[in-house]
Amino acid sequence: MSTAKPEFEPRDPGFQDKVRTSFARQRIMDTLSAELTTVAPGKVTIQMPFNQAMTQQHGFLHAGIIGTIADSACGYAAFSLMPAGAAVLSVEYKLNLLAPAEGQEFVATGQVLKSGRTLTVCNGEVEAITEGGRKLIASMTATMMTITGRGIRD
Amino acid sequence: MSTAKPEFEPRDPGFQDKVRTSFARQRIMDTLSAELTTVAPGKVTIQMPFNQAMTQQHGFLHAGIIGTIADSACGYAAFSLMPAGAAVLSVEYKLNLLAPAEGQEFVATGQVLKSGRTLTVCNGEVEAITEGGRKLIASMTATMMTITGRGIRD
Amino acid sequence: MSTAKPEFEPRDPGFQDKVRTSFARQRIMDTLSAELTTVAPGKVTIQMPFNQAMTQQHGFLHAGIIGTIADSACGYAAFSLMPAGAAVLSVEYKLNLLAPAEGQEFVATGQVLKSGRTLTVCNGEVEAITEGGRKLIASMTATMMTITGRGIRD
Amino acid sequence: MSTAKPEFEPRDPGFQDKVRTSFARQRIMDTLSAELTTVAPGKVTIQMPFNQAMTQQHGFLHAGIIGTIADSACGYAAFSLMPAGAAVLSVEYKLNLLAPAEGQEFVATGQVLKSGRTLTVCNGEVEAITEGGRKLIASMTATMMTITGRGIRD
Repeated sequence: MSTAKPEFEPRDPGFQDKVRTSFARQRIMDTLSAELTTVAPGKVTIQMPFNQAMTQQHGFLHAGIIGTIADSACGYAAFSLMPAGAAVLSVEYKLNLLAPAEGQEFVATGQVLKSGRTLTVCNGEVEAITEGGRKLIASMTATMMTITGRGIRD
Repeated sequence: MSTAKPEFEPRDPGFQDKVRTSFARQRIMDTLSAELTTVAPGKVTIQMPFNQAMTQQHGFLHAGIIGTIADSACGYAAFSLMPAGAAVLSVEYKLNLLAPAEGQEFVATGQVLKSGRTLTVCNGEVEAITEGGRKLIASMTATMMTITGRGIRD
Repeated sequence: MSTAKPEFEPRDPGFQDKVRTSFARQRIMDTLSAELTTVAPGKVTIQMPFNQAMTQQHGFLHAGIIGTIADSACGYAAFSLMPAGAAVLSVEYKLNLLAPAEGQEFVATGQVLKSGRTLTVCNGEVEAITEGGRKLIASMTATMMTITGRGIRD
Repeated sequence: MSTAKPEFEPRDPGFQDKVRTSFARQRIMDTLSAELTTVAPGKVTIQMPFNQAMTQQHGFLHAGIIGTIADSACGYAAFSLMPAGAAVLSVEYKLNLLAPAEGQEFVATGQVLKSGRTLTVCNGEVEAITEGGRKLIASMTATMMTITGRGIRD
């Protein structure tokens, strides 16, 4: 809500590559035909088409799938600011569902709010794209953890 | 944490059938080979096998899929106590990831903590089943809403 | 994170008065020497000074007090858009603590993200004011409920 | 919801003393006339009387005060399992308000769900005690952090 958005300096100059490489290893993103559309320092966007195989009982995308792309967007936004050699882990997230997930495409944006040594807090939002325009359908707050020296790499 | 768990009286005697019918309409449950293993008043269990197509970058089930089965378990736990003709909607949920989602099977349990006229609060947990036993891997708190008279049915 | 902030039309032309009257009835706001500094449609700001009597073990303001002013800011932001005669109730909130609550003054801003018939989702943030400037110390997401016809008034 | 509750071994044999000493330094606990009623490994209970000076507009205890005692109960439950010399910090918490905070006394229980090297996840609940009995009025999930070697001590 602050007028000025935080500007972040990536600690790893190869942040673009490492985010794209790790994203490519998320088999679920391929399953969802999801694409990484923006990778900036502290900000990542993921887009996926509507998918009948992922719907709930009313024919909308299941809230868990909305959570999936929002969590990955937040995780990679956090990861973009982590030092080389670190891995990222989701600690917890909260998702508010604001409107039914109906539309042709869904865009999840993850943005770092606070980048700490161990923990990173991100805001996420998911918009549905229909013929009529864009609509905010979900809002997320996520806590991500930097993992180093435990034999896990992204 | 209270020693005594709340006991709930279903307002709809046909609660078993309506939960099973609505679950069968969730296309994503079929996609995940997920099954409804318990339907009791205020308590629902969903089980799914490990699924390589739903993994994140380290080869574990994506947190969003853990969230998917926990959200459905909580939603149907809430729905089991709703009056006939009502529909259920996820308002928000928070998911804490406690351990990597590795295992052969995953069991999500949703249990009603407080059942109100409009809102129902549920606790969810997800356990991973491995050869070595069961392990708690995630914990959820979810708020569900009873929808009546808006032309939505479950 | 969207570039355009939502603009809200208050349903009650007397929204300013009703927010100020209800705030004045919150005894805790007087106890905290907290003041209502902004009341706009869908946006409310509350300011309070540092208070030694409300500190935790390291001498910072207790997280629960940060939560108190953020919850009231979110609640009144939601209330500002509710119809005349309605009351507001906090359903749930999540608070992320981003930095220690040290400073001379603390400003909580609550802003409506989605205003529905029954539920309103708000974002909150708390900033600490020190001689050096303003610092974001906490972030909240809150769900508020419109109560009508139950004999409760604000 | 699991039938078996986790049993925890405190890493610091002096856990009772350090929890009580740190609690005594929380000025707000004195302000609220709150007392530490249980300190067990991974479980802490805090009790406070109703306090008119801490009420919201309907005369109930403010949700932020419910959050204050639940946060401290969760924080000290986590702290009871931390190694000697460590400090505890609240990372985030989510509070669901289940019923109005009316009663003579309020009891907050914090219990560790998962104790990790860096992060500890706790469940909290708050009960109101009235002449008629005990009633669950709020539920919390909190993430706590172990701080070592940063010059902060509890």
